[in-house]
Amino acid sequence: MSNPLLTTWSYAAPAAGAVGLVAATYFYFRIKALPEGNETMNRIAGYIREGSMAFLAREYKVLAVYAAVVFVLLTYALGIVAGSCFLLGAVLSLLAGFVGMKAATFANVRTARAAMLGSKPQALLTALDGGAVMGLCVAGLALLGLGGLYLTFRGQAVLPTVLHSFAVGASSIALFARVGGGIYTKAADVGADIAGKVIENIPEDDPRNPGVIADNVGDNVGDVAGMGADIYESLVAAIVAAMAIALTAPDAHLSGLMPTTSDAGSIRLVAVALPLVLAGIGLAVSLVGIFAARAMRKSDPATVLRSALIFPPIILVGVTFVIMPLFGVSQGVTGAIAAGAVGGAVIGLITEYYTAWAPIRKVAEASKTGAGTNVIQGLAVGMESVVVALLTVAAVAWAANQAMGDLGLYGIALSAVGMLAGTAIVMTVDAYGPIADNAGGISEMSGLGKEVRAITDELDSVGNTTAAIGKGFAIGSATLTVIALFSAFNLEVNHVRESRGLGGMELSITDPQILIGILVGAVLPFIVGSTTMLAVGRAAGAIVEEIGRQFREIPGLLQGQAEPQPARIVDIATKSALREMLLPGMTAVVAPVLIGFIAGPEALAGMLAGSVAVGASMSLFMANAGGAWDNAKKYIEKGGMTGHAKGSAAHKAAVVGDTVGDPFKDTSGPGVSILIKVMSVVSLLIAPLIAALH
Amino acid sequence: MSNPLLTTWSYAAPAAGAVGLVAATYFYFRIKALPEGNETMNRIAGYIREGSMAFLAREYKVLAVYAAVVFVLLTYALGIVAGSCFLLGAVLSLLAGFVGMKAATFANVRTARAAMLGSKPQALLTALDGGAVMGLCVAGLALLGLGGLYLTFRGQAVLPTVLHSFAVGASSIALFARVGGGIYTKAADVGADIAGKVIENIPEDDPRNPGVIADNVGDNVGDVAGMGADIYESLVAAIVAAMAIALTAPDAHLSGLMPTTSDAGSIRLVAVALPLVLAGIGLAVSLVGIFAARAMRKSDPATVLRSALIFPPIILVGVTFVIMPLFGVSQGVTGAIAAGAVGGAVIGLITEYYTAWAPIRKVAEASKTGAGTNVIQGLAVGMESVVVALLTVAAVAWAANQAMGDLGLYGIALSAVGMLAGTAIVMTVDAYGPIADNAGGISEMSGLGKEVRAITDELDSVGNTTAAIGKGFAIGSATLTVIALFSAFNLEVNHVRESRGLGGMELSITDPQILIGILVGAVLPFIVGSTTMLAVGRAAGAIVEEIGRQFREIPGLLQGQAEPQPARIVDIATKSALREMLLPGMTAVVAPVLIGFIAGPEALAGMLAGSVAVGASMSLFMANAGGAWDNAKKYIEKGGMTGHAKGSAAHKAAVVGDTVGDPFKDTSGPGVSILIKVMSVVSLLIAPLIAALH
Repeated sequence: MSNPLLTTWSYAAPAAGAVGLVAATYFYFRIKALPEGNETMNRIAGYIREGSMAFLAREYKVLAVYAAVVFVLLTYALGIVAGSCFLLGAVLSLLAGFVGMKAATFANVRTARAAMLGSKPQALLTALDGGAVMGLCVAGLALLGLGGLYLTFRGQAVLPTVLHSFAVGASSIALFARVGGGIYTKAADVGADIAGKVIENIPEDDPRNPGVIADNVGDNVGDVAGMGADIYESLVAAIVAAMAIALTAPDAHLSGLMPTTSDAGSIRLVAVALPLVLAGIGLAVSLVGIFAARAMRKSDPATVLRSALIFPPIILVGVTFVIMPLFGVSQGVTGAIAAGAVGGAVIGLITEYYTAWAPIRKVAEASKTGAGTNVIQGLAVGMESVVVALLTVAAVAWAANQAMGDLGLYGIALSAVGMLAGTAIVMTVDAYGPIADNAGGISEMSGLGKEVRAITDELDSVGNTTAAIGKGFAIGSATLTVIALFSAFNLEVNHVRESRGLGGMELSITDPQILIGILVGAVLPFIVGSTTMLAVGRAAGAIVEEIGRQFREIPGLLQGQAEPQPARIVDIATKSALREMLLPGMTAVVAPVLIGFIAGPEALAGMLAGSVAVGASMSLFMANAGGAWDNAKKYIEKGGMTGHAKGSAAHKAAVVGDTVGDPFKDTSGPGVSILIKVMSVVSLLIAPLIAALH
Repeated sequence: MSNPLLTTWSYAAPAAGAVGLVAATYFYFRIKALPEGNETMNRIAGYIREGSMAFLAREYKVLAVYAAVVFVLLTYALGIVAGSCFLLGAVLSLLAGFVGMKAATFANVRTARAAMLGSKPQALLTALDGGAVMGLCVAGLALLGLGGLYLTFRGQAVLPTVLHSFAVGASSIALFARVGGGIYTKAADVGADIAGKVIENIPEDDPRNPGVIADNVGDNVGDVAGMGADIYESLVAAIVAAMAIALTAPDAHLSGLMPTTSDAGSIRLVAVALPLVLAGIGLAVSLVGIFAARAMRKSDPATVLRSALIFPPIILVGVTFVIMPLFGVSQGVTGAIAAGAVGGAVIGLITEYYTAWAPIRKVAEASKTGAGTNVIQGLAVGMESVVVALLTVAAVAWAANQAMGDLGLYGIALSAVGMLAGTAIVMTVDAYGPIADNAGGISEMSGLGKEVRAITDELDSVGNTTAAIGKGFAIGSATLTVIALFSAFNLEVNHVRESRGLGGMELSITDPQILIGILVGAVLPFIVGSTTMLAVGRAAGAIVEEIGRQFREIPGLLQGQAEPQPARIVDIATKSALREMLLPGMTAVVAPVLIGFIAGPEALAGMLAGSVAVGASMSLFMANAGGAWDNAKKYIEKGGMTGHAKGSAAHKAAVVGDTVGDPFKDTSGPGVSILIKVMSVVSLLIAPLIAALH
């Protein structure tokens, strides 16, 4: 136990987590203390905040039932420690979502106020600080939770169960928050759009449209709380996967990690602790990055955000390179971390390319010949983006595998940790987007002038680009994480089988069971894809109907002489979203349990492999096609094509693509991505049970 | 060698093939001898025939270069026998395409004439006979070729190379014919549509539109020649996969096939011959089915075609059940054949459901709120169809695996043979569709009356439904075939490794190389998907331009006083299609060779697994979404939704979906399906080479 990694540095993760949470608290109260806007702004912001919190409260009630059921099942099957760790993983996710979203709904109106006073740097700072609360809560709670559990249970046989249960808790919340939030946000968006344009032909963000508040609520619910839960679970799952592989890798494979140590047991202890230490360093670097971005607030906002995403990973690699020798750990680890960190940036840039550069101009051009060609071009762009992005993921996995030799699978898991080590700052930038978007909406609805809108529009548009980067990054890291989890699952099953005196599981892909499992796994992303696409349509339909009713039944609404009833819309959207999230959500949890217990670990392994291949590619396809359609429409609106302005036939064609892209990019794409993560985490948790059965 | 399967019955396949070809010849000359139509009809039919043959001639020139290169490479790497068998497989495919398409372009005008004379049974008979030429050529040449090679080379060490080379020849032609034909047919369709509607607002099939002939040519090029080559290669690949598994399966696994025989060597001989025998019986049954359908010509056309698809597989199962005991072969074989035959029918019906029943009414309903919701609904329907169809394939594979015990992989391959045993009649019905469609086009362009159109419209509409069934069936059987080929590949690699004194390949899906291979494989269908989608768009654009030019520059064309120049359109479409097919085509051939030789058999196995999971699901998704959009539009046009007739806003929205669906269902979907087949066949062929290298 003399290795400094196991003594001093094992406190790095919880310590960094605690510091991150202190910083989050500081930002939270700093924002809350800032002056709000004028009376109209405050009223609108109040609606948005109340709507967001109402959604969260309602969602948490549904989740409480789910969590209670799973808690009982887990306690029965694996003991009270498993049940409790599951609850802890879930509750910390909910806490991050709650605090982060509250901060975002404070920050939006204060950002609008700064814009109203004409200060772009102040507006940028406010939106960034609001995002930082979410970013730091997500990373801080993940590391404090996991790090604390590690310190409590290290060396005990129950450690794997502790970690896996915590991860399942995190995954479960992410699943429902992402899917429910995704359905909500797009139903409100599409519903408000269709109603505004079709029923009464009033512009976007018009205060008379009762759906506009719901649309702004959606940004918080989907892009702040949903995205936060998603990234929280990715970080947790990546760390847990690496630790699980370290716990079960064959002794013979360990020596490469610490060339100067001969005792496999000591190496294993280091291997288990290392992912947490690296994540802790990542959080510290991110924190520095957040303060650096705040200090740069007078620069061009696009430069600030881009630097915030690109520099921290590079610094992380440098720090890793310096300290690995202190622990006697091979620089292969630095290689794996570097592969992940660089790969994450590359995937982010690829996503940006496909959703902001030449490809969207081609989509815009295709709109000239109608909606059909616009949709075809968008689909093709989405497909092409899959090729480049997924090959990058493959290259990262290859490099990490090469860097770590016999411990290649551990290397792949570390590359996922490397990609996610910047979680705090990535999530800060992600949550910044909806805050800036909301600030624009509040300015519009409050009738603030053009100059104010110019500031919020600029901040918003930068946010849209970085959101695309964040999304590509999230799916890329999810794919790596899932591969790591999948490997951990297989090792875990074999570990149990060997302890029963059985041979390792024959996971040959020539096994018919595995081949059939692959086909079944290929199907699951399509279940989630089709149900979520339709869910958005149904929920949007209900919203359109209610908006129509308000315009018919509230006298003077259309003339701007009466108030709309936004709470009713929020209510309808909330109910629909929560009802619709159950089928895709349960698919993700039930499928691995059913297949695992009935058909056995081989079939489950096949199913996971099939669902990763299809899920990773489909989620990238949907996310990027959606982003391309969205930005092609915006490109036309900004006058990118002379002779085809807003309202032209080409613009109308582009709106069709955008309508298709909305659920594609913000509901189904992320839903499929989280599906494969949840299935892998659940499989890892139940691995000992099914390995003992079959 | 006393087993009757190895003596008498081993001639079943070539004999059935020869009989089928005699019947094809009879139908060919019977059709040719029928009287043609009036002068206008003959002129139009002449344009279509010339255009189709011009495309084929041009395509064959490109293929000749490709075939020459591959011939040289194969002869160099594997010997002159391999090169020659490759050429034979390719040439027979070309021959089937040439003869079948010629027959189709004779039959279309004669079908129109029968309709002109008011005889629906005669029109049905003519279209069926035309289709039967293609159907019988496809199955007959496949069985004559494979059966002849088997009789020539049985017992020799070169047999696997012979079979695999033949299959690669078949696959190569299918790839280019399907992709090139798919691009051609949809470019012409979309181009003629857009030009007709956008430029001059003239109705579909209007003789003034110079693109209409190209559109009719496209039906022959894509749905007759392309589909024929595709089905030919599926049948060949399924038989070859089963034979390859029989040749390399471990001795210990063989005993279950013939419970009363103890000598593994004798059992293996039977196992190798059995797939051919079963396919031969299938062709005989199909031939009976074709004559039965002809005899039923006075019944309702929908009933005739549906019976033709459903009864032959059932009869095949009965015959198999009766004769297996004669050879001392287990009834497990009947179980595997039954699983495939029933599964094929079920997948066909599933496809019909999603592209003709409740789902298309939902797509039509969604058109009321615009093109965006139409597209969303269509995408969701396509995704949902994947779930049911692919689970059926998984169920077939599971049942076949169970039925055959230790020889489960062989069982899966036999289930693919069972699904494809009705190839002759399935292809007959498939080729019937474009003949009926062409007959309608010729009637319209020749100004024949409403009553004539009523007959051709009915025949055409029945053809559309059966085309959907055929398409689902093709993709379903392709998936099973690919699984079988994949298994054969793995067995082949291990076979070679063992002969080198090495252990079997470790194909564990926990191997990082395999995991990375899966990601790379997942990417390939997206390359083919995006390039083919865009290719259609580009080629259609060139056609629209040329049509616009003709209307501008040919005086009197719009007034119907001058002739259009259809040959120019055909020429442009042909050139574009052949140019655009190269990139997706080469991807399919080059990817497995590159990965196999550079990264080794493990990575290649992973790549195949990833591409099967993604390719099977994506091709079903695209084919069925496209079918749903197509038929939703037709449903509205036929007055399915009161208050939303042809020309209404809802109809215009449905046209957008149809435009997207055109390349989806007829270019990219089939292209992806053939991609995974070609890659598997190529991998099987190169397996010994890469196994010797790594």
